[in-house]
Amino acid sequence: MKIAVDAMGGDYAPKEVVQGIELARDAYPDVTFQLFGKSDQIKQYLKNDQNIDVIQADEVIEMGDEPVKAVRTKKQSSIVLAATAVKEGDADAFFSAGNTGAILAAGLFIVGRIKGIDRPGLTTTLPVITGKDAGKFVMIDVGANADTKVLNIYQYALMGKYYAQNVHKVANPRIGLLNNGTEADKGDMAHRKVHDLLAADKDINFVGNVESRELLNGVADVVVTDGFTGNAVLKSIEGTALSMLKLIKGSIMAGGTKSKFGALMLKGTFGDIANSMDYSQYGGAVLLGVKAPVVKTHGSSKAPTIKNTIGQIRDIIDSNMISDLNTYLTDHAEDLKQIKDSIKNSK
Amino acid sequence: MKIAVDAMGGDYAPKEVVQGIELARDAYPDVTFQLFGKSDQIKQYLKNDQNIDVIQADEVIEMGDEPVKAVRTKKQSSIVLAATAVKEGDADAFFSAGNTGAILAAGLFIVGRIKGIDRPGLTTTLPVITGKDAGKFVMIDVGANADTKVLNIYQYALMGKYYAQNVHKVANPRIGLLNNGTEADKGDMAHRKVHDLLAADKDINFVGNVESRELLNGVADVVVTDGFTGNAVLKSIEGTALSMLKLIKGSIMAGGTKSKFGALMLKGTFGDIANSMDYSQYGGAVLLGVKAPVVKTHGSSKAPTIKNTIGQIRDIIDSNMISDLNTYLTDHAEDLKQIKDSIKNSK
Repeated sequence: MKIAVDAMGGDYAPKEVVQGIELARDAYPDVTFQLFGKSDQIKQYLKNDQNIDVIQADEVIEMGDEPVKAVRTKKQSSIVLAATAVKEGDADAFFSAGNTGAILAAGLFIVGRIKGIDRPGLTTTLPVITGKDAGKFVMIDVGANADTKVLNIYQYALMGKYYAQNVHKVANPRIGLLNNGTEADKGDMAHRKVHDLLAADKDINFVGNVESRELLNGVADVVVTDGFTGNAVLKSIEGTALSMLKLIKGSIMAGGTKSKFGALMLKGTFGDIANSMDYSQYGGAVLLGVKAPVVKTHGSSKAPTIKNTIGQIRDIIDSNMISDLNTYLTDHAEDLKQIKDSIKNSK
Repeated sequence: MKIAVDAMGGDYAPKEVVQGIELARDAYPDVTFQLFGKSDQIKQYLKNDQNIDVIQADEVIEMGDEPVKAVRTKKQSSIVLAATAVKEGDADAFFSAGNTGAILAAGLFIVGRIKGIDRPGLTTTLPVITGKDAGKFVMIDVGANADTKVLNIYQYALMGKYYAQNVHKVANPRIGLLNNGTEADKGDMAHRKVHDLLAADKDINFVGNVESRELLNGVADVVVTDGFTGNAVLKSIEGTALSMLKLIKGSIMAGGTKSKFGALMLKGTFGDIANSMDYSQYGGAVLLGVKAPVVKTHGSSKAPTIKNTIGQIRDIIDSNMISDLNTYLTDHAEDLKQIKDSIKNSK
């Protein structure tokens, strides 16, 4: 398999991207890479070009660029060229640590939507840190669409199901709808409609509404939500975890010798906690609903995270999740059209 | 001042409510209380009835009751009678630890909206745990309205401003709009409109969009959001903090003697952290936009939390926030009508 990489995206590009891809190349001999970007800069860091093609891109989409406009106008940018390689079948997946909006736009407009999916959703894997079932779950959408409709959230459930089933190897993934209470009638009208649609769908193992308070306790394998709420919840979890770690550190430093000695003895524990909360170990955020894996990591990612993300992309490709999802959508096109019509008519 | 108390609400009612009110009575000699509920049960726990009137209520609205229906049909319930005492001017504020929906419904339908406010919003005070300005901020709405419109969020900003200014004594409160990015054009159409309205309002010290990742770092004194997102974010913060404390505990217990010894030395630190995250110290959630303070605490509240919440209610009454907000709304009725019309016309 071949992965098209935007070598110019992220705070430490191209250095950490190139080093991460070399780590990935050493770990996954079955993967080859196309590195798009400024060749001279890339080659400065590339130690060994085995399985790695460097392809010149004259332009770079910067973090501050307006995403859609940048994708439309910077035709020679590393993001546009890498996404185009996927569109044309030269590569199987697209990876970048750059401008999120531009990656989403390139996924949507260049790689292209799967037939039957109205809007792709951005998916993140998060840790389950308490409870017997400590593991992980996926949340979709965490920010691809701020204006989300009933039909979109319903389709997120289908996409999330195939992700959990094929990539996370969960036999019959439990799908939960993020809502402000567990009762069926909670939330605004849109959430009530989504609840009823999912509850009625025999192909979905729907466990009902889930509250954000319970997410890290493993209430579901897939949590579906609109992109606005999903983004706010993801950032709340991140922010709270980071603030607590800072608070612990600050409190220890202010606490005198006894406290510092105690902290030394708990060093392993704090390391475990930081690891448990570090969801970059699960790789990047995946844009689901497009024809090939489009994956982004945090702009601050360094080489080891980039290597992990390549491992995740390899798992996605190996899992056949996109072709399985495609098959389902094709086989059930008539049912899905009826659902779409029923939503339109209920307005 | 006189506070009408639902003595039957909460997991430990009436015992902890009665004990909390006695603590509050001892702490605040200028406050008198009306305790609504089953008199015989209340009297069983009441040690000293100084400044406390016990008023019989034959019915109780249970946690599982459908809120609006319960408020309409259980006319002799402690919630309905206590709210009615406020409506009729017999009491200055209404407090309960019971069914949240019923408290909101009693606030809205019995105590009544302030003229000029279309929908009251539920407000919570949260800690700022990192950064130089460690203190607190208010978030509104955290769940009164799942279907929130542009006008509602705009009005939350006005209400939150008076809360921070009068009750928290913040001179010129910084108002932030919770959004999925700090740029002015972030979010769905509704959030963009709210952003522009707040930015144009000379009476609002608007600091722009704020992200949920930064809330605990003190980016604003008042954070406004729709009730669906606010509820999800509040519960994410709670859930993540609780999960991390559990994780720390579990990791220590699994970590052997050295780890346990370290934990012993850090006991003070962990206590500080639990305190920092315990927002019940700031009292309960306040329904703003009704004619008198309507305040609820967690159903699990015990006597000390109930006493703190009474202190908070006393501060709200003393601060004249409701009459100041009223004056502002009356003086600016024409401007506010124009804003309302402009929102209608922009649709």
